[in-house]
Amino acid sequence: MQRKVYLNMQSLEQARHVFFSRFSALRTGAETISSRRAAGRVTAEPVTARLSAPSFHSAAMDGLAVRAEETFAASDDNPLTLDIASGQAVFVNTGHPMPPDKDAVIMIEHVVLAEDEQRCTIRTPVFPWQNVRKVGEDIVATELLFTANHLLAPADVAALLTAGRDRVRVRRRPRVIILPTGSELVDLEQCPDPGQGQTIESNSAVLAALAEEAGAEVEVRPIIADRYETIRQGLRDSLDGGADLVVINAGSSAGSADYTVRVIEEMGEVLVHGVTIMPGKPTILAEVDHVPVVGNPGYPVSAVISFEQFVVPLLCRMQGRPVPEPLRAEAVVGRDLPSRSGIEEFRRMIAGRIGPDLVTVPLKKGSGAITTLTRANAILRIPASSEGVSRGSRVELELLRPRKQIEQTILCTGSHDLCLDLLHDFLRRSDPAYPLASTHVGSLGGILAIRDNMTHLAGSHLLDPETGEYNLTYLQRYLPGRSVALVTLVHRQQGFMVRPGNPKNICTVQDLIRDDVRFINRQAGSGTRVLLDFELDRASIDPDQIDGYDSEEYTHMAVAVAVLSGKADAGLGILAAARALGLDFVPVTEERYDLIIPEELLDHPGIDQVLAIMQKSAFKKQVEAMGGYSTRETGTRKL
Amino acid sequence: MQRKVYLNMQSLEQARHVFFSRFSALRTGAETISSRRAAGRVTAEPVTARLSAPSFHSAAMDGLAVRAEETFAASDDNPLTLDIASGQAVFVNTGHPMPPDKDAVIMIEHVVLAEDEQRCTIRTPVFPWQNVRKVGEDIVATELLFTANHLLAPADVAALLTAGRDRVRVRRRPRVIILPTGSELVDLEQCPDPGQGQTIESNSAVLAALAEEAGAEVEVRPIIADRYETIRQGLRDSLDGGADLVVINAGSSAGSADYTVRVIEEMGEVLVHGVTIMPGKPTILAEVDHVPVVGNPGYPVSAVISFEQFVVPLLCRMQGRPVPEPLRAEAVVGRDLPSRSGIEEFRRMIAGRIGPDLVTVPLKKGSGAITTLTRANAILRIPASSEGVSRGSRVELELLRPRKQIEQTILCTGSHDLCLDLLHDFLRRSDPAYPLASTHVGSLGGILAIRDNMTHLAGSHLLDPETGEYNLTYLQRYLPGRSVALVTLVHRQQGFMVRPGNPKNICTVQDLIRDDVRFINRQAGSGTRVLLDFELDRASIDPDQIDGYDSEEYTHMAVAVAVLSGKADAGLGILAAARALGLDFVPVTEERYDLIIPEELLDHPGIDQVLAIMQKSAFKKQVEAMGGYSTRETGTRKL
Repeated sequence: MQRKVYLNMQSLEQARHVFFSRFSALRTGAETISSRRAAGRVTAEPVTARLSAPSFHSAAMDGLAVRAEETFAASDDNPLTLDIASGQAVFVNTGHPMPPDKDAVIMIEHVVLAEDEQRCTIRTPVFPWQNVRKVGEDIVATELLFTANHLLAPADVAALLTAGRDRVRVRRRPRVIILPTGSELVDLEQCPDPGQGQTIESNSAVLAALAEEAGAEVEVRPIIADRYETIRQGLRDSLDGGADLVVINAGSSAGSADYTVRVIEEMGEVLVHGVTIMPGKPTILAEVDHVPVVGNPGYPVSAVISFEQFVVPLLCRMQGRPVPEPLRAEAVVGRDLPSRSGIEEFRRMIAGRIGPDLVTVPLKKGSGAITTLTRANAILRIPASSEGVSRGSRVELELLRPRKQIEQTILCTGSHDLCLDLLHDFLRRSDPAYPLASTHVGSLGGILAIRDNMTHLAGSHLLDPETGEYNLTYLQRYLPGRSVALVTLVHRQQGFMVRPGNPKNICTVQDLIRDDVRFINRQAGSGTRVLLDFELDRASIDPDQIDGYDSEEYTHMAVAVAVLSGKADAGLGILAAARALGLDFVPVTEERYDLIIPEELLDHPGIDQVLAIMQKSAFKKQVEAMGGYSTRETGTRKL
Repeated sequence: MQRKVYLNMQSLEQARHVFFSRFSALRTGAETISSRRAAGRVTAEPVTARLSAPSFHSAAMDGLAVRAEETFAASDDNPLTLDIASGQAVFVNTGHPMPPDKDAVIMIEHVVLAEDEQRCTIRTPVFPWQNVRKVGEDIVATELLFTANHLLAPADVAALLTAGRDRVRVRRRPRVIILPTGSELVDLEQCPDPGQGQTIESNSAVLAALAEEAGAEVEVRPIIADRYETIRQGLRDSLDGGADLVVINAGSSAGSADYTVRVIEEMGEVLVHGVTIMPGKPTILAEVDHVPVVGNPGYPVSAVISFEQFVVPLLCRMQGRPVPEPLRAEAVVGRDLPSRSGIEEFRRMIAGRIGPDLVTVPLKKGSGAITTLTRANAILRIPASSEGVSRGSRVELELLRPRKQIEQTILCTGSHDLCLDLLHDFLRRSDPAYPLASTHVGSLGGILAIRDNMTHLAGSHLLDPETGEYNLTYLQRYLPGRSVALVTLVHRQQGFMVRPGNPKNICTVQDLIRDDVRFINRQAGSGTRVLLDFELDRASIDPDQIDGYDSEEYTHMAVAVAVLSGKADAGLGILAAARALGLDFVPVTEERYDLIIPEELLDHPGIDQVLAIMQKSAFKKQVEAMGGYSTRETGTRKL
């Protein structure tokens, strides 16, 4: 078994420097295209005007063309009559050529026409060249319109055409060939239901879209197996096929089947193998036959981040276009974010505005989870020199969405419920469309986020075992003196999720202590955990008797997955989660799920929308349709 | 002659409200497309996951799959041996399915393999599910991936594919039909050399590019004449052809040939005719057969600004995508900008950073000049309620270029010379590419801009008639105590520009006082004006004797145009300007043209580039090639 380590691990800054300076002179060739299609392209050489604009003196207003000197006597006291019949004044429209002997235009609004339109009266003079666009006023033939390396904007197309340039020399789009490699990969279109060990190939589509955004033309080759010969042949064909840049995805880590680096070593030169960033470490930067070749990591988030750091800037440079810069904004961090020194981390974050500040909380770290990137609206880069960021500190975020959209984002922290997804969908149909970004930290975590001003909404279903009441006791305990509204979102059934047919016949909490039953629990602080403990207490069951009581998951779905996969036989959760995975559901009890909203945010227009949606019958109907829910008190304010 | 006034003039805010609320429910239909091509499209309905991801427990690292509990005894003091031959530990690569009885992966880096690879030793235990990606860790089947109205980013494509969605329902691109109207318009491709009274049609290409940027599919119809019947037929055909939005350009002002509003009045309803903005006033917003119809102004800048205010937002709303918001930044205004109360002005500006602040100066106002838009890097909106902005006040700009590019912009204010365009082209080829933005206010204007910290560079060729020296005296007079560098850009010939063949035989300043000679002058404060006055003084000529001495233009090119058009017989200027328009040139004298640079800006990396370029032989060679220039002292520091 042959294994390699990273050949030439470098910091992000070093790696970028090595890669970009190797190809600093690399530019795509020039091509001539129609100016009408040139917006978004980059000039390959300076463009000068062929024609002047206007090319003749023209009227700049609708009105009467005159010789200015013949109007000088006009005043309010001394209206002047001009003769139209004789040609002393001539009707002209905007853009029309000036009659040869005229040098000014009187606006039609300033003229009193005789009924026969043969004469007119004016009360104000015009000065020479007033309301006339002179030859070359806009563009003079031979003048420089655009330098080389100018990214042509839509308005620039008008300047090209107006200056008589119906064609323009621009940089050719770089041709990018993407080679998906991996014996475990399948194409979804050919294999709609992948089996055990098969993974849907998706990176090539993302990288293709990113490269196209950067102005490239992209060809995605069919998936090739993780073998030395196939990768070598794929790379050879791509180079022979005229690629300006080749991306091999994946096959860049140090594992046994990662032949890419060996292939490149033989065919060309590996400049960088391994970059001290996370995600994105297994990146290869290389040159073969004077062409940049990139071995891109296989994990989807790693693939995107590596591509954005290395390939996108190089593609832009090859065309002479500016490298896109992320928008940045300052935000307050809602949680401690420890980080490994020596590695630059790209943490996917959710940000929103609360009061004067943007606040931000992290999503999960796993680079295998594409949803950490699709759900994020910002990136926090934690430098290699740092051991992390502490709660409450101010950081600079790179924004993944327009600033306005981030400012409109409603943060929802706490317990998760599927009705929040429905709420989000309704919000996105409203105008303006508020995004709802939820992070799942359990009911108590949500209440603490309210305390720390780190969320707009907290979803909570915390039962007080003493009173049988939901949430109120906890608000008194954790938010003393804080004014909050408590609005019921739904009542929902909680029950045991079990495998189809309930093979272990689990019906009550008593069954959990059986030797043949393995349980999966929710984390401490979650409403479901409190509910379980309440039911165990009522039944006088010692948690220590339950196998799996200490195994914790953070969401209903994760519990359902544990049951489905056989890791556990039962977990407490909601009907919707069981139904989603085709599990059976044994109802145990019903509970109330409320939204907690700080009083001062009640007039936030997004929160206003949230409250309005909860009153809508269309919303309630869809909630009920999910099963396991009652909307009998949805939208009712409890506090 | 039938003339109309604006039917229903409204403020920008009113007009937008009327237009957008009329079409608030208008959405394009849905269509199903390949997820691989879905980046940039907007979901038409919520998208849920069909498959979970991962769909099986898989190794998250390259290494050995084990049962975690069998590793708990391992420690530094107590290395543990695992048996590979028997299957106690199994080699796995990232992404591979976990063997059924294993629940953790030991990273290959943490393993010491026996030489025969039949056993291995570990010194650290792994906990259950460590380095394992569990089923559904990323995506759980049935969960909400995206709400409706979600603009799909590249990474979202990966989530779609990974969740088993190879096709996705998105909003159809709106179909926009653009009708260019105007009897004076010609298509440049069919008419490469338009004659008197003919204007190259260019707006349709700009509007098409803007609409495409907003996600639309655009069809530009052939130019139609400014007649009631042709416009009526064009609109009818567009509506019958399935347009989601029709743009008639132009024909929206109140002139005699503007039939658009009459056509629309008859076929549908005019909602707004005339908006109190400048440029952009002659805008028609209407509805015909439930389709939005827009009469767009004819002047290019007006056309763009009106389109961006009305059409682009509506196209975005029709697709449920966020309306693009311009980036904004605060800047200090370099000049007084008076503005008419009652009209909201969109002034095209040039901005750059000097010291801690962005500073900004206006370009010309004319909405006929597309170059005011292509040269601008920012827009200043002066509200209708304001009578203008005074020099030194802080304003908010809308940026037309990325912030970084604006921060890199080198402002050059003062006298213009064609070598500055060459300098600009060389700068744009440097890395990073600094844009050079020059505004032409004459040499003295440039010196005053230096004084006020409103420019990086000032181009100046001010002769001191007493000493025969250039610029130095003026720096002492206007910038006392200020440290500046004075670097020679070129020596250049100044002479009389005359029509080809010099029909009036103008050879010396003496000829300017002839009765049959009409002169065109440069503005007071310009170096050329000072030079002329110097020569007149030497020849004892009274300026009052010169016909046209009081007619002023601001650039060499404008003077050349005045001569070419016959407005004047001669003007003083540079050879390059004469040559550009095919004029003859009668040398009068040679002068020095310097760049003035504040001392504290000399270490600005862009200025550094400027100074380096002036030393380059490639630059000097191109300057000399223009004719009328000497580079014998180019790059020499005089102060």
